[in-house]
Amino acid sequence: MSNTTIYNFSAGPAILPESVLRTAQSEMFDYNGTGFSVMTMSHRSDVFMSILYHAEQDLRQLMDIPDNYKVLFLQGGASAQFNMVVMNLANGFERVDSVVTGNWSQIAHSQMGKLSHANIHLAAHGGEQYNYTDLPSPDTWDVSEKSAFVHFVINETVHGLQYRDIPKLATALPPMVCDMSSEILSRPINVADFGVIYAGAQKNIGPSGATIVIIREDLLKRCSSHIPDVWNYQSHVERQGMYNTPATYPIYISGLVFRWLQSQGGVAQMQTINALKAKILYEAIDNSGGFYINNVQPRARSQMNVIFRTGKPELDELFAQESTTRGLRLLRGYKSMGGMRASIYNAMPLQGVEALIEFMQEFQKRYG
Amino acid sequence: MSNTTIYNFSAGPAILPESVLRTAQSEMFDYNGTGFSVMTMSHRSDVFMSILYHAEQDLRQLMDIPDNYKVLFLQGGASAQFNMVVMNLANGFERVDSVVTGNWSQIAHSQMGKLSHANIHLAAHGGEQYNYTDLPSPDTWDVSEKSAFVHFVINETVHGLQYRDIPKLATALPPMVCDMSSEILSRPINVADFGVIYAGAQKNIGPSGATIVIIREDLLKRCSSHIPDVWNYQSHVERQGMYNTPATYPIYISGLVFRWLQSQGGVAQMQTINALKAKILYEAIDNSGGFYINNVQPRARSQMNVIFRTGKPELDELFAQESTTRGLRLLRGYKSMGGMRASIYNAMPLQGVEALIEFMQEFQKRYG
Repeated sequence: MSNTTIYNFSAGPAILPESVLRTAQSEMFDYNGTGFSVMTMSHRSDVFMSILYHAEQDLRQLMDIPDNYKVLFLQGGASAQFNMVVMNLANGFERVDSVVTGNWSQIAHSQMGKLSHANIHLAAHGGEQYNYTDLPSPDTWDVSEKSAFVHFVINETVHGLQYRDIPKLATALPPMVCDMSSEILSRPINVADFGVIYAGAQKNIGPSGATIVIIREDLLKRCSSHIPDVWNYQSHVERQGMYNTPATYPIYISGLVFRWLQSQGGVAQMQTINALKAKILYEAIDNSGGFYINNVQPRARSQMNVIFRTGKPELDELFAQESTTRGLRLLRGYKSMGGMRASIYNAMPLQGVEALIEFMQEFQKRYG
Repeated sequence: MSNTTIYNFSAGPAILPESVLRTAQSEMFDYNGTGFSVMTMSHRSDVFMSILYHAEQDLRQLMDIPDNYKVLFLQGGASAQFNMVVMNLANGFERVDSVVTGNWSQIAHSQMGKLSHANIHLAAHGGEQYNYTDLPSPDTWDVSEKSAFVHFVINETVHGLQYRDIPKLATALPPMVCDMSSEILSRPINVADFGVIYAGAQKNIGPSGATIVIIREDLLKRCSSHIPDVWNYQSHVERQGMYNTPATYPIYISGLVFRWLQSQGGVAQMQTINALKAKILYEAIDNSGGFYINNVQPRARSQMNVIFRTGKPELDELFAQESTTRGLRLLRGYKSMGGMRASIYNAMPLQGVEALIEFMQEFQKRYG
C-alpha cells in the first residue's frame, strides 16, 4: 500500500467513520470489559440488549422520534420492506399509491403488488414525466384518501435524485411510507409527517444487514395475524425486536455510528456539511464547461449521490481507473447507468470531496 | 478483567474461533491490501464478489455439496426460511408434511401455513409422543408421496435433541427440507439426501445476519414469479446471490470460519472432537449420582446443545451465577426451560468442556 489517503465513494455498503472502525477493532475481543466480542454474544444477553436499547435511544434522540413511533432493527434491507409495508398496512384497503422517481421506487412499485390484493396505483412517474432528471412535486401526486398509504423513495441513488423539499401531504390524505435508506440522518426531518420510515443501514449509516423501521403505532393495528410473524411489524414490536435473532453486529456498528453523529453535532450539523460537500461538487461539474455533465434539475439534485459523466464512455472508464489509483475509490456509476457516481454520505469528510474535485480538474486538463 | 480464560457457551449468536476474530481485527482497516474494511465495500465490488465466491466454494468443499445444488447466503435467519420454503416449494401442492420435535420445529409448524393454501400436515410430534425426551423415528413419520416436502429440524437447541442417525426417506417420498442451523458442519452428511438444507449462521458458524440455503436445482422450477423477488429462491439464484445487498460482514466472517474448519481437518475431524466433547459432558451428568439431570434418551441427545438441571431452581440459578464468575458464560437454559444449557459448537475447544466438567464436580461437592 502507498500512503495515499483512500476515500471510499461506494453507494453501499458504504464508508464508515474511521473512529467507528477503530472502536470495533479495539473491542473485537472484549466489549466494555465483558471479555466477549459483540459478534459472539447471545442476542438475549443483558449486554446485547443494552446495546440494542442504546442504539434505539440514540436514534430517537438524533431524529427526534416522537413517543408514538416504534423503532425496529430488522433484516432483509429495503427490498424486504417493499413487500412488508403492503402486507402489514394494506389489509382491508383496495388501493396503495406508489410514486416512481427512479430505479429503487420502480422496483418497489413492481414488487408491492405481489402477495397483496390491493391495487398498486401509480401516483406519479418521474421517468415518464422528466426522464428522471427531475422529481414530480407532491402537489401533483395522484393520491386518494382511500388508499392505505403513499409510498415513495426520498433519495434515488442510481439517478442521483433527492426531494430537497421534504414531501408533506394534507392530513386528510393517507400516511406517507418512505424509503430513506440513502439519506436517513443526513438532514433534519419531521418524523411525525410520516406513517413509516424505513432504511437499509448500508448506505448512510454504513454496514449491511440491519434495516431500520420507524412506524407510527396506530398503524400497527392493521397488521394481521395471518402475516408470518417474521414479516409482521406487530410481532416484532411485541417481542421488543427479539422475535428472531437480529443481525447483532451490524446493529452494534450502527449504534457506534449514531454515537459518532452525536459527537459531530447531530443531524443539523450533518446537514450543513452535506450541503457544502454537494454544493462544491455540483459547482465543479457545472463550471467544467461541459466536460462533466449532470442533467438533473438543481432542485432535485441529490446531496448524497452525485452522478456525472463526460459524455464519452471510454473517458468515463479512464476516469474510473485513474481515480482508483489515486485513492478515490468506487466512483463507477450504477451498472445500468454508466458514468460516475460519487456517494458522499455523512461519513465522507469534506476533504474527500475536495480531493475528488482536485482530481476532476486535473483529469480535465489532461483529457479535456 | 481477571486472567480467567473465558468460555462462551451461548446458544447463538455463538462462540467464534479466536483466530477468526484475530483475522477480522487485523483486517478491520485493510482487507488483503485493498485499503478497505470489508464492512465498507460495495457488495458488487470485485473484492467482495471474490469473498462471496470463496465462501461458497469452501462451504461446497467442506460439505461435499453436489453440483446440482445451489448455495445462497440470504438474510432473516431460519425464521424467514420457515415461510420461504412453503412459498417457494409448495406451489401446486395440497400438502406439506411437518415433523415437530421441539421448540423450533413447533414454531416452524405454526408459521408454515401462513401465506400458503397447502395443508401443513403434522407428520409426527415428539412432544406428544415423548414429552421431548426422544425423537420420532423417520420410519414412523406420516408422510405422503403427494406432499410438497417434509420439513424437520435436525437439532433442537432448546430441548437438547438431535437425530444422531441422519434421517433418510425412500426415494418415492417427497424431498426433505431440513433446518440445520444448530449443527451444520458439525458432522458429515450426504447433501444429496436432502431437497433443501438451510441454516442461520449464528449457531454453529458464529455471527448472526447470514442464512445459508442449499437447494437442489430442480426444485427451483417450483418457485413462482408471483413470489416477491426478495423471498424467491429463483430470483436470488438468477442474480448469483446479489438480488439485494447481502449481509456482507457476516458472510465474510462465515467465510473465515469455513477456512478455519478446513485448517482443523474439516467436518470429519469436527465430528470426532464433537463426539468426544459430548461424550464426556453427558458422562459427567450421568455419573453425578442424580445431582445433574438430563432426561433425554441417549440416542436422541444433542452433541451440540447439552441441557441439564439439578432439579432445584434456586440451585440452578446459583450454578448460572457462579459459573459466570469462573469464566463459564451463558450457561442459563432457554427462558421457557430453565436449568442449564451448554452449547458446545465446533468452535468450543475440548478444554472448555473440561473446564465446565471440573466446575460441575466442584459445585456438586459444595452443594450436593
